[in-house]
Amino acid sequence: MSSAVSANNTDRYVIGVDYGTLSGRALVVRVDDGAEVGTAVHEYRHGVIDRTLPATGEALPPDWALQDPEDYLEVLRTAVPAAIAAAGIHPASVIGIATDFTACTVLPALADGTPLCTLPDLVGRPHAYPKLWKHHAAQGQADRINALAHERGEPWINRYGGKISSEWQFAKGLQLLEEDPEVYARAERWIEAADWIIWQLCGAETRNVCTAGYKGIFQDGQYPSAEYLAALNPDFAGFVAKIEHPLLPLGARAGGLTAEAAAWTGLTEGIAVAVGNVDAHVTAPAAQAIDPGQMVMIMGTSTCHVMNGETLAEVPGMCGVVEGGIVAGGYGYEAGQSGVGDIFAWFVDSSLPAEYGAEAERLGVSPHEYLSGLAAAQRVGQHGLVALDWHNGNRSVLVDHELSGVIVGQTLATKPEDTYRALVEATAFGTRTIVDAFEGSGLPVRELVAAGGLLKNAFLMQLYADVTGRPLSILGSEQGPALGSAIHAAVAAGAYPDVPAAAAAMGRVQRRVYEPDPERAKAYDALYEEYRLLHDYFGRGTNDVLHRLRKIRNEATK
Amino acid sequence: MSSAVSANNTDRYVIGVDYGTLSGRALVVRVDDGAEVGTAVHEYRHGVIDRTLPATGEALPPDWALQDPEDYLEVLRTAVPAAIAAAGIHPASVIGIATDFTACTVLPALADGTPLCTLPDLVGRPHAYPKLWKHHAAQGQADRINALAHERGEPWINRYGGKISSEWQFAKGLQLLEEDPEVYARAERWIEAADWIIWQLCGAETRNVCTAGYKGIFQDGQYPSAEYLAALNPDFAGFVAKIEHPLLPLGARAGGLTAEAAAWTGLTEGIAVAVGNVDAHVTAPAAQAIDPGQMVMIMGTSTCHVMNGETLAEVPGMCGVVEGGIVAGGYGYEAGQSGVGDIFAWFVDSSLPAEYGAEAERLGVSPHEYLSGLAAAQRVGQHGLVALDWHNGNRSVLVDHELSGVIVGQTLATKPEDTYRALVEATAFGTRTIVDAFEGSGLPVRELVAAGGLLKNAFLMQLYADVTGRPLSILGSEQGPALGSAIHAAVAAGAYPDVPAAAAAMGRVQRRVYEPDPERAKAYDALYEEYRLLHDYFGRGTNDVLHRLRKIRNEATK
Repeated sequence: MSSAVSANNTDRYVIGVDYGTLSGRALVVRVDDGAEVGTAVHEYRHGVIDRTLPATGEALPPDWALQDPEDYLEVLRTAVPAAIAAAGIHPASVIGIATDFTACTVLPALADGTPLCTLPDLVGRPHAYPKLWKHHAAQGQADRINALAHERGEPWINRYGGKISSEWQFAKGLQLLEEDPEVYARAERWIEAADWIIWQLCGAETRNVCTAGYKGIFQDGQYPSAEYLAALNPDFAGFVAKIEHPLLPLGARAGGLTAEAAAWTGLTEGIAVAVGNVDAHVTAPAAQAIDPGQMVMIMGTSTCHVMNGETLAEVPGMCGVVEGGIVAGGYGYEAGQSGVGDIFAWFVDSSLPAEYGAEAERLGVSPHEYLSGLAAAQRVGQHGLVALDWHNGNRSVLVDHELSGVIVGQTLATKPEDTYRALVEATAFGTRTIVDAFEGSGLPVRELVAAGGLLKNAFLMQLYADVTGRPLSILGSEQGPALGSAIHAAVAAGAYPDVPAAAAAMGRVQRRVYEPDPERAKAYDALYEEYRLLHDYFGRGTNDVLHRLRKIRNEATK
Repeated sequence: MSSAVSANNTDRYVIGVDYGTLSGRALVVRVDDGAEVGTAVHEYRHGVIDRTLPATGEALPPDWALQDPEDYLEVLRTAVPAAIAAAGIHPASVIGIATDFTACTVLPALADGTPLCTLPDLVGRPHAYPKLWKHHAAQGQADRINALAHERGEPWINRYGGKISSEWQFAKGLQLLEEDPEVYARAERWIEAADWIIWQLCGAETRNVCTAGYKGIFQDGQYPSAEYLAALNPDFAGFVAKIEHPLLPLGARAGGLTAEAAAWTGLTEGIAVAVGNVDAHVTAPAAQAIDPGQMVMIMGTSTCHVMNGETLAEVPGMCGVVEGGIVAGGYGYEAGQSGVGDIFAWFVDSSLPAEYGAEAERLGVSPHEYLSGLAAAQRVGQHGLVALDWHNGNRSVLVDHELSGVIVGQTLATKPEDTYRALVEATAFGTRTIVDAFEGSGLPVRELVAAGGLLKNAFLMQLYADVTGRPLSILGSEQGPALGSAIHAAVAAGAYPDVPAAAAAMGRVQRRVYEPDPERAKAYDALYEEYRLLHDYFGRGTNDVLHRLRKIRNEATK
């Protein structure tokens, strides 16, 4: 992706760094028009730490997922210079840098930002490490947080659809306290990796309104009260002191690049560093989808939905609503599906017959492309199937990570492409359920704007348009989050007055690429009704078999 | 399987011919002790005709399944002589022959037994061919038969668990009338293939009490009334004339082998030919399981359950109860599961990842053996799954061929052996549901006696013992139906006074080979409860989604 841009031109550039689950990507973007001129990726050396702790070889319990913060710094040292080199620009022409991160990925640190896991006496303590977003071992704590919040009528609980996720700051923090009180005590700060990386770049702690709102239960100017926290656990009463800090809006300047960070990256000391941000949320401006009613779907292994609203509404089962959580001045809504591309990958890994793999190879396409091609030739309902897309739980509307998948209607004539199509449809029905929940709460969803790795599957995209009955626009960049970060860097550097102005100049979207087909949309209405019936039967306790099976499974694997 | 028996000894032999779905097998058996001395198989050239009619290339509608009667005769011409040759016996030492057949497999014929499909002007008419047992396109007719029988309070309907199957003589006959009235009019006889093949062997039409009772609604000495049939369709009023004929008990002599049939088979003209019989029912004496409370399970692609009872009871959803239907003097009960081995085969064909296939090959085992080995290592419930075994519909207790499969609880961690085990368990739960229905109707099931191709899977057998909480005995022959036929041939030839006496001398069983493990049985009680909940939810109309999906599928594939 190197470019024809000459190193001695007078263009100005910004760098967006997107921290994902397995790697970090740096993208060099021209300030004037958002042109992407160079990019590079660094795969984390430790990836996701979910089996054994590298320092000791200690086995981790089920549902744990840690990371090593050194991997995050390595992205700055390798991917950023490589992206600049690929762009063929002079580093001095870069005027700002911004990052986005997975969230809630959160770590304990000293008051100076030193991660506890780097202290020699704590390197062998799992709880000293960053807990990745998909660390799901704090469900017990989350359950108590939710039950107590409803019991006490805490005003913030309905800002989160009625349920705080086990993935978030308070659940993970309470788990830390209860399972390793010494590490908890030594954690002077409990900080999102999104904010921690900014600290490393500009030398000062900052906190951003987005992660504080969505993951840190900051609502209406405050965190949950000490009384509430003490009722959860007396030793948890002072937890907020570990996270409290003035919050900065998205796109704000966190500080100037330190000499040390300048040396890592090859950039100029003192250039603007924007405050931290989240991968999903930062994508909305990249897709020029920040008006109310434009729902951005970042579709990859899972799907995040973000949308601005003009009013404050409580959507049942949404992830959260945060004032200024996507762009300043609007109410930012977030929802999500915890398994999407992951489900298709599981199917291909666990269920693809050898002859299908061989035929895909012969045709020079991936198994996904091959199955999608076969499935695309079908008429709606021809496979006779309907599935529930809960193989990785349900993030919205049910907010239940202990649900699991269901498939209904298989016969001896059911082929792999039938089941594959049914799974793709199930995820589209999942999206429609979320859209319905928003609309049912008074938040119209006028347009779906797709971003992420699943964009390239035209069959899937058309199917989403048909199932939701809405036109689908698509982000015009393959690097949505990094481009979104670059937009924020440009604002932090003062090149644009605000994020909407920068998005208008630098963002990219192709409008209405997929239009719903009226006949297919009608046929899907009937299948969606079946999905909703099963959704409520299996998801709302009419038959709690999925929870019982999970319990039996957990007992049997002890 | 040739033997050391000398061709010039004085032993007497009989031949059993088992007509299956895809092939016919001849077995030479010594009359004195049931020793199996030679066998041979002939695969039907046309197999199951379910896509296009060979004579014309015409595409058949969904759910059709035909056969070519010439294939049945070819078994007599090839497999019988080959079995005699393999046995190394003199053909003159064979004193009788008997057959068993799939049922209800039924064909239209002239008054002399000529199948209509062999007439030059009807060779291109699908309705002129034998309809195989698994021809499922007469469901509409079956529904009307059932509704009207209940409406009129017909006394026979509860002898069939309240539902006549679409597989049986009246439903298939009514379909013939309504879809091809000309062929219906020219059908002077409507005859089970089980009886038709005897006609070819002995030159005279006979009908047996077993197929007449189970498949032909012959109860208490009569067929359904002309008034009832006219109410179904005025032109159907005279249907019984096509099937009516004196009935002979099982093991009776139908006649002597004709010169023509002697030429086909190499046997002696005039030797005893027994009346027709059914593959499942004939297996009970082979397994010495003809006492009340001994339930024989013939487990292959599907499973048939047959059991003698001392009393006449009406079991909800059973296939039928027929006086003398298994052996003369008892009430013969039949139930069944329409998909068992077929479901496992479907799974392996459609869902086995390449690396599993490769590993099985490396180990020199079949994919079924490989998956069974992996599944056997699990604890009950460890996979977190429960499935409904209706991929080929439900024959008993729901008697609904338009149901389909369901699998509940899959996650991103679900492996092929997990799903495989869940499918095996689902079929065992299906058996337990049938056992429960019998016991709930006052018919104790004391012992399960397994026969059929699935016998060789010890993992599956143990699992059935654990799920049903009952000891499992196994038939001591790999050719249960053919051995059962041979037993009937010996009775027809006068070598034994009756079937029980012949069974005692010639049958074989190993008692209590698999005992239920108390701990696993208890764990399965919990999973069985989940199965029953889903069984009733999806099978009894609480959520009729399976029927709606079938309807949508049928519309979409039109």
